[in-house]
Amino acid sequence: MTTTHDPDRLARAYLSRVLCRPDRRVGALIGEVGAQEAARAIRDGMASTEISGRTAARAEIDTAAADLDAIAAMGGRFVIPEDDEWPQWRLLGFDRLDRVDDAAPIGLWVRGGRSLADLTERAVAVVGTRAASEYGAHVTAQLAGDLAADGWTIVSGAAFGIDAAAHRGALGVGGVTVAVLACGVDRAYPSGHARLLTSIARDGAIVSEYPPGTTPARHRFLARNRLVAGVSDGVVVVEAGWRSGAHNTAGWGRRLGRVVMAVPGPVTSAASVGCNRLIRENEAILVGSATDVAELVAPLGSVSRDDAAVVRDTDVLSGETLLVYEALPAHETCSPLELSRESGVRIENVRAVLPLLELEGFVAGEDAGWRRVR
Amino acid sequence: MTTTHDPDRLARAYLSRVLCRPDRRVGALIGEVGAQEAARAIRDGMASTEISGRTAARAEIDTAAADLDAIAAMGGRFVIPEDDEWPQWRLLGFDRLDRVDDAAPIGLWVRGGRSLADLTERAVAVVGTRAASEYGAHVTAQLAGDLAADGWTIVSGAAFGIDAAAHRGALGVGGVTVAVLACGVDRAYPSGHARLLTSIARDGAIVSEYPPGTTPARHRFLARNRLVAGVSDGVVVVEAGWRSGAHNTAGWGRRLGRVVMAVPGPVTSAASVGCNRLIRENEAILVGSATDVAELVAPLGSVSRDDAAVVRDTDVLSGETLLVYEALPAHETCSPLELSRESGVRIENVRAVLPLLELEGFVAGEDAGWRRVR
Repeated sequence: MTTTHDPDRLARAYLSRVLCRPDRRVGALIGEVGAQEAARAIRDGMASTEISGRTAARAEIDTAAADLDAIAAMGGRFVIPEDDEWPQWRLLGFDRLDRVDDAAPIGLWVRGGRSLADLTERAVAVVGTRAASEYGAHVTAQLAGDLAADGWTIVSGAAFGIDAAAHRGALGVGGVTVAVLACGVDRAYPSGHARLLTSIARDGAIVSEYPPGTTPARHRFLARNRLVAGVSDGVVVVEAGWRSGAHNTAGWGRRLGRVVMAVPGPVTSAASVGCNRLIRENEAILVGSATDVAELVAPLGSVSRDDAAVVRDTDVLSGETLLVYEALPAHETCSPLELSRESGVRIENVRAVLPLLELEGFVAGEDAGWRRVR
Repeated sequence: MTTTHDPDRLARAYLSRVLCRPDRRVGALIGEVGAQEAARAIRDGMASTEISGRTAARAEIDTAAADLDAIAAMGGRFVIPEDDEWPQWRLLGFDRLDRVDDAAPIGLWVRGGRSLADLTERAVAVVGTRAASEYGAHVTAQLAGDLAADGWTIVSGAAFGIDAAAHRGALGVGGVTVAVLACGVDRAYPSGHARLLTSIARDGAIVSEYPPGTTPARHRFLARNRLVAGVSDGVVVVEAGWRSGAHNTAGWGRRLGRVVMAVPGPVTSAASVGCNRLIRENEAILVGSATDVAELVAPLGSVSRDDAAVVRDTDVLSGETLLVYEALPAHETCSPLELSRESGVRIENVRAVLPLLELEGFVAGEDAGWRRVR
């Protein structure tokens, strides 16, 4: 092909293939020297020992131009942070974490016409076990359908069972849904879902951080789960066995400060063991309907509640806002500096967040400092 | 009859009939002047205005001796705080509360041969809706049966539905169960449970704070719920509708500092709405089995956990070891070179890590390459 590719895009496409897994050190390197320099350093074995350790085995594979041609040929694109549609504010969550795999993607391979930023502006992940029960499939379709009808994008992983029911539930009401894959977006995985994936791409998107041709592998499913949570306001697990990928997605949701929710089920059902456990261990909030979910994930004040039930609910807070709020003692006042110390949030961010919390009625500023409003 | 009754018992029997509802001011009066003086003051209209306001209409009804004769005639007894079998330490919980109806009973009318203190030493209340589903009845029988087999007394209210399933679950394993009634213990209520009540009294007890002949009434059910929680270590709600007496029992459990638990159910089932709500609102801890319940109500260290649950857990792996392990496909063998490509770990490190993984039983080396062990 003769297409000329943007050099940053080319560099990131290269990195997307060479990096087999998320690595925040590579993100940091890009932040320092730019994508092109980072790609060059890795290709030439000049990056840090840690990065080289992870990339040396694949550093010579450079199919970037061919990959970009391939994605274009199938009507898709490779979205990078420099693009307007990059879901920037969503993926910022990864910056606050600190494990090596707590990294935003290098870029996203996408099929589907709409802007990723738009698609993920109001998004809820609905996930669960492949071995869904009739109950789970029913509840998923209802929940996803109701949320999608209310304008929420339904994000899931296109797997059998709950994932498929979530995508179908959204499609069934003419809603929008996004599938995040653990393989290239050119691959129909599972193959039984080829038709479903085509429908998803029509009004929504199929997204992957892996270049075309990548096959699914266990570690990619785990990294995929991080993106499912990463692009969503909240994660709903509808059914999950004792050990389930959905737990992993829920864990990512928790770490990213997303609202993590689970649908309870019969204690006699193996498919509900995982959800009941998440709820029992306070790792997820019990939800039973789209209304429950919307109340938890909607931006403050955007859900009209029954006036009788107007409770100022800190569940609507997340990220640094929540950290700052929680750092406030129940009955005393605090200075921004004390709050920064207590919450671990930078002082300038504490100062930025407090007026917002006050506006929403959570805190009040007084001469002596800030205090909670009850 | 010619029986001579203990004057304190007679005084409390009188008060038990005159007081239509729990009243801590009467308890306080008894504490100050003794039961006999308190009874006299109330009978003569000399008690405080508040107490008189509640007792004046019935103060002249003195059937105490006849009531004591009646309970004796049916092989029962009226237990008062002066008796050794009074569940003293259980009912102390009421002393810490402060609403007017937060009162320990004046005395307890009992059918059944065993000591009340013994019966309630290790006791769990299992309660729920009359409109139980098949699921609820099944879980209740299992839960109550397992707890009873483990030596727990099952306390409930002898109502249709969950209550009956709880009593029967205990009886079915030769366990002990206590029914707390909202009417006199001479009455079979509901009448369909006459035979069940007889079985309950055989090894357990039927208990009421109302004298023989008292008919059930709404306020008595609420007061009864307070006693169900009052004599138990914890309260399990198995199924409950949106508004249910079981909520009231759970509320009493919470106020008394008991462990309040609920069994989740399908979000599509009206019979589980109340339980799911209790859990969602953090008013009850989710439980699914007798083991869950015992872990919460048993004194620390008295529950032995199943050693069989030791699973080879990849959570113990980390760093490159985990990367290499995860790069292994589930059902195929791989060469170290393939593993290096897939995992991004340097080939020499892959070669170093594989024998360690084999030693730990995670992988096995074969002629064709390395594979996972399950």
